[in-house]
Amino acid sequence: MEKVGKLIVGAGESSADMRYATGLSTPDAFIWAARGDDSVAVLSPLEFDRARRQAKQGVRLMPERELGGGGRTANIAKLAEQLGVKGFLVPFDFPLCLADELRAAGVELHAAGEGSFFPEREFKSPAEAELVTSSLRAAEAGVERAAHILADSSIAADGMIVYENAPLTSERLRAEIDTELLLHGTLPTGTICAGGVQGACPHNAGSGVLYANTPIVMDVFPRSVETGYWGDLTRTMLKGRAPQLVANAYQAVREAREHAKSLIRPGAIPEEIHRAAAAVLEKHGFYTGRGDGGEFGFFHGLGHGVGLEIHEAPRLSLRNRKPLRGGEIVTVEPGLYYPEWGGIRLEDMVYVEAGGSCRCLTEIGDFLEIP
Amino acid sequence: MEKVGKLIVGAGESSADMRYATGLSTPDAFIWAARGDDSVAVLSPLEFDRARRQAKQGVRLMPERELGGGGRTANIAKLAEQLGVKGFLVPFDFPLCLADELRAAGVELHAAGEGSFFPEREFKSPAEAELVTSSLRAAEAGVERAAHILADSSIAADGMIVYENAPLTSERLRAEIDTELLLHGTLPTGTICAGGVQGACPHNAGSGVLYANTPIVMDVFPRSVETGYWGDLTRTMLKGRAPQLVANAYQAVREAREHAKSLIRPGAIPEEIHRAAAAVLEKHGFYTGRGDGGEFGFFHGLGHGVGLEIHEAPRLSLRNRKPLRGGEIVTVEPGLYYPEWGGIRLEDMVYVEAGGSCRCLTEIGDFLEIP
Repeated sequence: MEKVGKLIVGAGESSADMRYATGLSTPDAFIWAARGDDSVAVLSPLEFDRARRQAKQGVRLMPERELGGGGRTANIAKLAEQLGVKGFLVPFDFPLCLADELRAAGVELHAAGEGSFFPEREFKSPAEAELVTSSLRAAEAGVERAAHILADSSIAADGMIVYENAPLTSERLRAEIDTELLLHGTLPTGTICAGGVQGACPHNAGSGVLYANTPIVMDVFPRSVETGYWGDLTRTMLKGRAPQLVANAYQAVREAREHAKSLIRPGAIPEEIHRAAAAVLEKHGFYTGRGDGGEFGFFHGLGHGVGLEIHEAPRLSLRNRKPLRGGEIVTVEPGLYYPEWGGIRLEDMVYVEAGGSCRCLTEIGDFLEIP
Repeated sequence: MEKVGKLIVGAGESSADMRYATGLSTPDAFIWAARGDDSVAVLSPLEFDRARRQAKQGVRLMPERELGGGGRTANIAKLAEQLGVKGFLVPFDFPLCLADELRAAGVELHAAGEGSFFPEREFKSPAEAELVTSSLRAAEAGVERAAHILADSSIAADGMIVYENAPLTSERLRAEIDTELLLHGTLPTGTICAGGVQGACPHNAGSGVLYANTPIVMDVFPRSVETGYWGDLTRTMLKGRAPQLVANAYQAVREAREHAKSLIRPGAIPEEIHRAAAAVLEKHGFYTGRGDGGEFGFFHGLGHGVGLEIHEAPRLSLRNRKPLRGGEIVTVEPGLYYPEWGGIRLEDMVYVEAGGSCRCLTEIGDFLEIP
């Protein structure tokens, strides 16, 4: 009884660690525990049949009733006994209430730091890279549909974009993109279609009528229903003609993204890549700071890892000096935001290759103006 | 420094408590703390602008930088000092890793039991009931669209359902329902369209070609993008003619649901309502048990609360003897599942009214056979 096992209590849908451990996408929480290669998922009758079809190879499925009817804490204590461990490593977000009960019952728990419960999740196999790419393709199809809609639209005298005889809204454009995501077997989760000054707030989802000659930021991040892997894509485009300042900002962001991508390889330092991208933006005269209208310029991280979570390690940001390693998948998404006219963000995804530099997973091109 | 405050660290999108406390639907985690009526949300520059528009009245918004750059644990310790508390009550799922750090730093934490951090969340105001109803209407629109598609389909010689010159699949039917959800401003999250024997497993989402004369279980549970409130609806229907056994099961489930609804009122005991529904099913000759093919009959709870979570208190199940109270919104969803032929589930939502009995929120009717 010296060895420490691993324990997760969570739902396959919301806990990436649980999905990674078991392959299961249950809506409700269940128990998974392991000691070395002996890995067991404890399931209710509601989930047992699905689990038989979905579970990763090597995961032993145990009906809940085999542990008796003593509730979660008693079940876990029994599991610890069966596995011959006196305690468990648990993910950083293990529920505190359950942890306090387990500790009071004599089960030792050690919480892993954020993202370090399965450190191997950070490094994607080629098969996992395919799954991410497949979700990315869904996002690309969504953005293409949006571009077609803008192409098929007209511009009213007051500058409103008109589509199918009605003013085109963020809500409508988002529903069109999201429908495309559904048809590709992915779930939309918060697609951004923010036009004009709304685009100056990177997380503004966008609402209301869209206007011509001002950029529309589209950030699309679908998750595969079947596999749980995410894709992430941002494009910025506009109907009509771009004002010179917007065209300049677009070129600067594009150059920053391409320059950053050229630096990504095993051993490269995220902080330095972020600084290099920011330097390109400054070289074009686009500065970052804080004014009366809030933050302006380039005030978010350059990118983040993507896998079974939409935001995971490694971060490409000023706070990360840990060298990149082969197998990581990261977004590269510089942006410029000015409350006076809006925002530009261009986001690709790249796969850091163990041997060499990086491979861009994104295939869709860049286009600002749609006539 | 004696009083205990309240503390949440979570994302508005995934933590119902956070959404309830702040009104914010952020994708990333942030800090909220309160002492009595003094309630403060600590936000990054990325979220600050959106928060200004979305936040509930009375929530003070504090830019992260005001607490200095010391990281989450230091920020929370500083907040405790500012609020004049020595510790916090936190939700049951407060992340253990952060809890251990905070306790080591001298901040006392007490974890609430599941669902008891904001016990008032269980009791919905009429305005909240409206928001749930609005999401339910989206689900109804989705099921109606599915019914229209079945009506517009034909039956091939081998029994396959054919729609628009192609075999109709679970995937296609689900995409049609989900598209309707999107158009109603809600997000689909795992719509079930399970035909034939797939329907015998209550959580099987369904896949592949659908066949005539065998029931299709459709469980639709959308969440409003704007408000975060869920709706929940299940209907079971089939293309063509129902075998007598299926028609009998359908009648039994319908009668069980109506009988259960007639018993729901303040003071009623959930366990007894569940037993009463099960008794109706048995009276019709539909028994529950466990065989070689797994569980059969009616082997899940009769219903559950719905609000900012899709499954919340109170449960209508054998394990709950706590009397119902006015303001609760629960599903009533008896079902019958037999591995030999499939499943039937019919789910309505009701609002327990403080004064009297209950009001059914579901408007769509029941229909088994679609010619």
